[in-house]
Amino acid sequence: MLFGKITGTVVSTMKDKKLEGLRFLLVQVVDPDGKLMPQYVVAADSVGAGIDETVLFATGSSARQTEKTDNKPVDAVIMAIVDTWDVNGKTIYDKSKSDLITV
Amino acid sequence: MLFGKITGTVVSTMKDKKLEGLRFLLVQVVDPDGKLMPQYVVAADSVGAGIDETVLFATGSSARQTEKTDNKPVDAVIMAIVDTWDVNGKTIYDKSKSDLITV
Amino acid sequence: MLFGKITGTVVSTMKDKKLEGLRFLLVQVVDPDGKLMPQYVVAADSVGAGIDETVLFATGSSARQTEKTDNKPVDAVIMAIVDTWDVNGKTIYDKSKSDLITV
Amino acid sequence: MLFGKITGTVVSTMKDKKLEGLRFLLVQVVDPDGKLMPQYVVAADSVGAGIDETVLFATGSSARQTEKTDNKPVDAVIMAIVDTWDVNGKTIYDKSKSDLITV
Amino acid sequence: MLFGKITGTVVSTMKDKKLEGLRFLLVQVVDPDGKLMPQYVVAADSVGAGIDETVLFATGSSARQTEKTDNKPVDAVIMAIVDTWDVNGKTIYDKSKSDLITV
Repeated sequence: MLFGKITGTVVSTMKDKKLEGLRFLLVQVVDPDGKLMPQYVVAADSVGAGIDETVLFATGSSARQTEKTDNKPVDAVIMAIVDTWDVNGKTIYDKSKSDLITV
Repeated sequence: MLFGKITGTVVSTMKDKKLEGLRFLLVQVVDPDGKLMPQYVVAADSVGAGIDETVLFATGSSARQTEKTDNKPVDAVIMAIVDTWDVNGKTIYDKSKSDLITV
Repeated sequence: MLFGKITGTVVSTMKDKKLEGLRFLLVQVVDPDGKLMPQYVVAADSVGAGIDETVLFATGSSARQTEKTDNKPVDAVIMAIVDTWDVNGKTIYDKSKSDLITV
Repeated sequence: MLFGKITGTVVSTMKDKKLEGLRFLLVQVVDPDGKLMPQYVVAADSVGAGIDETVLFATGSSARQTEKTDNKPVDAVIMAIVDTWDVNGKTIYDKSKSDLITV
Repeated sequence: MLFGKITGTVVSTMKDKKLEGLRFLLVQVVDPDGKLMPQYVVAADSVGAGIDETVLFATGSSARQTEKTDNKPVDAVIMAIVDTWDVNGKTIYDKSKSDLITV
């Protein structure tokens, strides 16, 4: 998994029928220091994530292991909203402080 | 998934027999700002996408989860045609305006 | 899938027993403009491809979806020989003209 | 698999229900010379790894092949704690000496 | 698959129980010209490969398709020892001559 920040939404009406009802969000990759990286993915949402939230996303076949994405043609899923993470004993991100430290 | 723009078509008569009837399209990757990237993939089409359309494509085993690609040796599938997408509250792409903003 | 050109052959006698009878070919990646890229893969052949032919190859679990590669430990398969491809309405490659346009 | 060093922990309460009870650790990639690389992954822990330990992690669908990660939406798992590794007959890392040689 | 040269060994006692009895080898990637690349992977051995041997390795779910790796949390497997390979009609590597041509 990688850290990501929800930066956008995607709307599609003409799509594979298995995808009805799934939300697609634009996720920008965040590195362990909390810095936004020039890397993104469009992921299915399985946890009710919202714009600006910091999440974990999984890719590949693992993206189909949630109830909402089972057997569907999606290769990325948001499977957790991050509360906090620490690197070398230092808190880099704390959701309760709405605080994403960017270098 | 990633955004892509359909830029070409591929014709093959000598191929694995499971691939009969599948259309192969050339897809150039588009970044969240709507800019064409120097990255491409040949994908099977599951939604009737046409030249110049902006789509979402999925790769890996997820590419086999549509009705048209089930159990077939394809590692990329176009599974949605994009109507619009937004980044940080700003509309980057709107199909109804036939408008792909490129930086 | 990506475009590739068959540039070589690989011989192995000591191998997993499931691989008996499979041909391994060296494939160099070709970009949409027909240019050879500094990127390669060793792929199992499922279509009788020969040296210098331009092909499509699939990677990952999809490489096991042909009759010849079913359940075998291979992560790349040549699943089609390309006749022609077009980009933006221009024919880049046409096998009948034995013509690979390289930039 | 790649070598990694556990550098942090991740806490998430809102997540896919299958993920209950799994520990997520931040893993920084280590190269064969024992050097920390600017590359990381968040992995599920299946072996009780702790901060600063040097481990092996697997990605993709293989990350779901441990008892703790079976059928769960995770794409990376720590599946071994490394005791030692050698390159060209020279010991690069020896856990008993708590010694990670970094170049 | 990619070409690799076995350059080292990895020892681990604390690991997922399914991994008992598997050998883990350090594999450095070799390009089609026989040149060692700055890229490596730790792979499970399914063919009895030894230090300095030139092999083929497969990654992803295909790494679990050998008898020794079936259902195990490994994402790379050595599935063949290479005898020879040719590029554009020229032999680049011939095991019987213990000869790896490096540029």
